[in-house]
Amino acid sequence: MQITSEILQKLIDIAGKTYVFTDDETRNHYGHDETEDYIFPPGVVVKPGSAEEISAIMVLANEYKIPVVPIAARTGLSGGALSIHQGIGLAMDRFNKILEIDEQNLQVTTEPAVITQILRETVAEKGLFYPPDPSSQGSCWIGGNVAENAGGARAVKYGVTKDYVLNLEVVLPNGDIIWTGANTLKNSTGYNLTQLMVGSEGTLGIITKIVLKLLPCNSHNVLMLVPFYQASQACEAVSAIFRAGIVPSALEFMERDAIDWAVRFVEGISVTIQPEHQAHLLIEVDGNYPEVLMLEAEKIMGVVEQFQIDEILFADTDEQKNALWKMRRGVAEAVKSNSIYKEEDTVVPRYELPKLLQGIKEIGKKYGFKSVCYGHAGDGNLHVNIIKSDMTDANWKTEVPKGIREIFELTVSLKGTLSGEHGIGFVQKNYMDIAFSEVQLQLMRNIKRVFDPNNVLNPGKIFPDSLD
Amino acid sequence: MQITSEILQKLIDIAGKTYVFTDDETRNHYGHDETEDYIFPPGVVVKPGSAEEISAIMVLANEYKIPVVPIAARTGLSGGALSIHQGIGLAMDRFNKILEIDEQNLQVTTEPAVITQILRETVAEKGLFYPPDPSSQGSCWIGGNVAENAGGARAVKYGVTKDYVLNLEVVLPNGDIIWTGANTLKNSTGYNLTQLMVGSEGTLGIITKIVLKLLPCNSHNVLMLVPFYQASQACEAVSAIFRAGIVPSALEFMERDAIDWAVRFVEGISVTIQPEHQAHLLIEVDGNYPEVLMLEAEKIMGVVEQFQIDEILFADTDEQKNALWKMRRGVAEAVKSNSIYKEEDTVVPRYELPKLLQGIKEIGKKYGFKSVCYGHAGDGNLHVNIIKSDMTDANWKTEVPKGIREIFELTVSLKGTLSGEHGIGFVQKNYMDIAFSEVQLQLMRNIKRVFDPNNVLNPGKIFPDSLD
Repeated sequence: MQITSEILQKLIDIAGKTYVFTDDETRNHYGHDETEDYIFPPGVVVKPGSAEEISAIMVLANEYKIPVVPIAARTGLSGGALSIHQGIGLAMDRFNKILEIDEQNLQVTTEPAVITQILRETVAEKGLFYPPDPSSQGSCWIGGNVAENAGGARAVKYGVTKDYVLNLEVVLPNGDIIWTGANTLKNSTGYNLTQLMVGSEGTLGIITKIVLKLLPCNSHNVLMLVPFYQASQACEAVSAIFRAGIVPSALEFMERDAIDWAVRFVEGISVTIQPEHQAHLLIEVDGNYPEVLMLEAEKIMGVVEQFQIDEILFADTDEQKNALWKMRRGVAEAVKSNSIYKEEDTVVPRYELPKLLQGIKEIGKKYGFKSVCYGHAGDGNLHVNIIKSDMTDANWKTEVPKGIREIFELTVSLKGTLSGEHGIGFVQKNYMDIAFSEVQLQLMRNIKRVFDPNNVLNPGKIFPDSLD
Repeated sequence: MQITSEILQKLIDIAGKTYVFTDDETRNHYGHDETEDYIFPPGVVVKPGSAEEISAIMVLANEYKIPVVPIAARTGLSGGALSIHQGIGLAMDRFNKILEIDEQNLQVTTEPAVITQILRETVAEKGLFYPPDPSSQGSCWIGGNVAENAGGARAVKYGVTKDYVLNLEVVLPNGDIIWTGANTLKNSTGYNLTQLMVGSEGTLGIITKIVLKLLPCNSHNVLMLVPFYQASQACEAVSAIFRAGIVPSALEFMERDAIDWAVRFVEGISVTIQPEHQAHLLIEVDGNYPEVLMLEAEKIMGVVEQFQIDEILFADTDEQKNALWKMRRGVAEAVKSNSIYKEEDTVVPRYELPKLLQGIKEIGKKYGFKSVCYGHAGDGNLHVNIIKSDMTDANWKTEVPKGIREIFELTVSLKGTLSGEHGIGFVQKNYMDIAFSEVQLQLMRNIKRVFDPNNVLNPGKIFPDSLD
């Protein structure tokens, strides 16, 4: 779809000349996210300043059948923000205000372009806690978190983004502006449009305001790193911890290669890893009573000591804790900055993790690729970074997709699914037939049609090409 | 819609003669729930034995355009299970098995016709905890809980039914059988059909299997009853408790009249209530460490003592705890058994409770009705039982609906909504215009059309008559 001078003029009339960009630099900037090395620049970038302006843009888009892609912080890992059909890139940068922290009701109302970590820190100053903490929290936006239903390390105890979204102001694809629900903790009033919007990856509407539930802050936590001699035993320990009656606030798995990558490539990681340690669990418990946390940590020690482990490292100071978290969060960064890769976001019931990990390694052998696995093991959510390494370009292109398909088939056979927290977006859409039948996909496709009959909002995402 | 002998024969062919009922007794039995004194018997009652039989019934229903109403335990308070257009009453009684308790993954897979309390007790025997505990838990079914997104006293800490539903097997209105998601704690794979189905009140599909998340059991709790001299102060204390950093596992409000009704009409309640106590809060904290619970109880005492209260009653034994819960749960039963009533299920952000309560009383005065108010104050969820008492039939019919409309208008103006946990069903549908604009309602209506183009599944529910 060509952006004609007529359309351009209308966009300028709506958003103002300062906020409409056709230069290559801006278009390229908004043409990529963190998904592999894809670049799909929009035909024009618009930075609207209000829901009303977005509404006018959507009316225009429907009139001329122009694709519109909402673009947040471009930290996404599934290509949801890529302008694969060019059109209008709706850069949400100006929606960057925290509108109200409601200390009486423990809620925050925010615009979407607020960095998640800043939102978390700002409410923490009032003694309030917004738990979801995706690894990209230092750069991702809360609006993108809602669009992808982002998770994070603390999801294992506190749930994911969807569990905190109470209400959304949304511009619908036809330009109507609605709230999806009410600012209440409970709601049995009509269909749950809020939860339908969360995780819909910018295909059902453009989020302009977000009301989030908050909790009172916890004051203490205990963090420990447990080295295992066998990766499979680390996976087994995950479910054993829950069966012992403990709900940790984080329970992260890293196989040896994952830590190696982080230690090699991320500056300032001082953790020393023994070569015989095949995997680590990073385990945190939190609460308000240090004595209780010590008791829980002891219980966890009792569980993991039933497996073959080396000495447990307790992080005593904030500095040590930050170092461990930096290492965990650095894995993805290390892989992404230093290799051609594809990242999968498999999720299974947590007890199935050992089978999933073993299967991934066997599939990798079959198709000739290496993988670095790590992730939110407490949730059964395993990130699989497939590394190109010395694979030929031809094999990377033909063999790896076959391997990914087998990984997803294994995941689904274990009662899991394709994505735990990254979304389907552009890169996983042609695997959707593994998780869903034609009936399920058509149902979703028809819901999309209700919202967006002209298919102008973020087309070519989520649904397999066969259905698009 | 008349059930002809031809249709009847086809139903018998599908479900077997033993499970198809046309006698008045059965039809009347399945013709009412707990919603006021409504009786709408289905034309025929069928008790299917499998999802496949339900599928065949739905195909038949579409062919002949016969309304089908899924019927669970008939404890609903919004008339969702009433066969207002006769047709086929789909009594789910035979779906009464807990299929699998997965102790490894902390999940249970169950059929819908399992009594919620039995489900809770059965998983508790394995040390597992299913938190949602609607007041009707001794008789309601888990399937109805999912259909209405039921809450309960523990929702304030643990969330409502929707927060525990991982995956659903559903027969769609056209007869297709699908699973809505995956058995995982996190899921960013396509639109959230699971959450669209939860709370859709039997209008989008018939639930045949339910996968629920479980938690490890807590071993201890502390329960206290706090008498307030002013109802408004009891409401204010609710939000003060959270602001002090405490998340109680229950925080229930009862105005004086509510307890009076319970004490007068429910047998075996031995609590003595002083006439000068205008309201009570029933507060519970739970966890695994008794010392911590005592600390939290002390913190709560510190908060409530800033208001004008009488002596706090601590329930020391299980017997005393059960007596207090019996009193709380007995309020609804007492009102329902001893008066003509209408029950509303208002919900607001919790700090707005005092304004809501005061407004309800003023509206009652204006239209000449009394109300008994109680409910899950920690969630801002206030049940309003409007009592006919000595009101004339004419006024009951004309004035009360005006008053209810004003109550809902007040609720929505406080950023709340019509129903926190009972659903809209039949009796609240013509108030939906207060919570939603035409745009929002049409969006929901169009979603309904995607699932059920012939409007055969539970027609005449949720949507106002103007839209039906």
